[in-house]
Amino acid sequence: MLLAMLQDNAAVLDVDANLDVIDQAAGRAAAAGAALLLTPELFPVGYAPLRIAAEFDYSSVPQIRERLAGIARRHGIGLVYSLPVRDGRGAHRITATFLDRNGESLLDYAKVHLFGDDERKAFSPASEAPAVVGFEGLQASLLICYDVEFPEAVRAAAGRGAELLLVPTALSAGFDEVPQLLLRARALESQLTVAYANHSGQEDGCDFLGGSVVAGPDGGLLAAAGGEAELVFAEVSAADARAARDKVPYLRERRPEVYRRWEP
Amino acid sequence: MLLAMLQDNAAVLDVDANLDVIDQAAGRAAAAGAALLLTPELFPVGYAPLRIAAEFDYSSVPQIRERLAGIARRHGIGLVYSLPVRDGRGAHRITATFLDRNGESLLDYAKVHLFGDDERKAFSPASEAPAVVGFEGLQASLLICYDVEFPEAVRAAAGRGAELLLVPTALSAGFDEVPQLLLRARALESQLTVAYANHSGQEDGCDFLGGSVVAGPDGGLLAAAGGEAELVFAEVSAADARAARDKVPYLRERRPEVYRRWEP
Repeated sequence: MLLAMLQDNAAVLDVDANLDVIDQAAGRAAAAGAALLLTPELFPVGYAPLRIAAEFDYSSVPQIRERLAGIARRHGIGLVYSLPVRDGRGAHRITATFLDRNGESLLDYAKVHLFGDDERKAFSPASEAPAVVGFEGLQASLLICYDVEFPEAVRAAAGRGAELLLVPTALSAGFDEVPQLLLRARALESQLTVAYANHSGQEDGCDFLGGSVVAGPDGGLLAAAGGEAELVFAEVSAADARAARDKVPYLRERRPEVYRRWEP
Repeated sequence: MLLAMLQDNAAVLDVDANLDVIDQAAGRAAAAGAALLLTPELFPVGYAPLRIAAEFDYSSVPQIRERLAGIARRHGIGLVYSLPVRDGRGAHRITATFLDRNGESLLDYAKVHLFGDDERKAFSPASEAPAVVGFEGLQASLLICYDVEFPEAVRAAAGRGAELLLVPTALSAGFDEVPQLLLRARALESQLTVAYANHSGQEDGCDFLGGSVVAGPDGGLLAAAGGEAELVFAEVSAADARAARDKVPYLRERRPEVYRRWEP
């Protein structure tokens, strides 16, 4: 399956402009034969937790979702997007949603590990495990940004059968070791492909790294973006994950009953 | 603290020859000012699980331990060594022992994750968590080889306060991604220094990678050996781990109560 990832600069709280960027990327990705477009964390609204908390109209979320579903449907491409959401109990979450080529929702996920003071002021951490869904012959799952830096979160997806982990992110400049080292290790140790789509440029005073990557289950990079806006492509397959699991059976040789006793 | 690591070729079941190599390395390490010498997995007997099972006289272990304690004492250097041991219930384990500069035992550990069919024929996996001990101002712990490829095992050491993880290993050629990628990720994600001492050359038909490394809590390599026999030195400190824990608080921001619910 050909995967496309959007790395770009979002305009803070300018939903129209950001959806236009996603729309154009979806068109280019579909034209290139991609089955799925992965977009960065909170891209439709821009990454700006405190401004989202102060200024974002959460009641507009259903309408934004409809427009994103329209983009997927119009271009006939799967789409992963990330939005701030107020859930049924009034808690604000950073979420990700996986749409199929018809714009129908396949999977939802809410961020479990919030990063830094601003995110903790604007949002509450969720605690549901990442679920898995079949898409184009691959078992796919979602995490968001800081989540993937924790091996436990990737284990949870892999343990549920994920072969492809789709990760919208918003990673600042200066953290190159996250895509270049941690992401590759996550893919290798949990024997799946990890796609990690970041912002580029500056949003609300924060400089983003760019540097989006797709890391394969052998720990190698299938794609790596530079620092600027870029549409990144990588061919991903379930066969890669299966080959890795045959070579060194990390997932089978974990000892969860022992680890449980080790927890304090 | 200056740490020394022995990377060398062991002679299978020639304990005298292998203890001579350790003795000479301890002398050189102590002369260079090292406080501790880390040696590879099963080095005193050579890495050869099936030949150990068939030919090793387990009743000789106390005498080998005495000679290793004598090496530590004579050179006034801490020593981590790894031996095959038959425990009180008759189970055969791959173990590691940490001696202080007087040859007194500070810490014992038995391998939890056995690698491959030969190890599983010759040994039984242990299930005790790695313990931690203070040494020269650092909190130190032990794992063995395949153990460290599992993030859960390193978390267990870090969760008990380890700042320095000492890992005797026996890693075959062709697995360069283990020291170059996984070890660095372990150090970064669990915010400690990981020292990983491997065999070089061939033992019982197995080609070893060499490539021993010391990875710091920022994910960088403090030392990296080539493929041949080498005495590797690295300056390690508790301050590195503390600085990393201040920068990104991975250990504090884990959510173990959530992970526990996620386990199937």
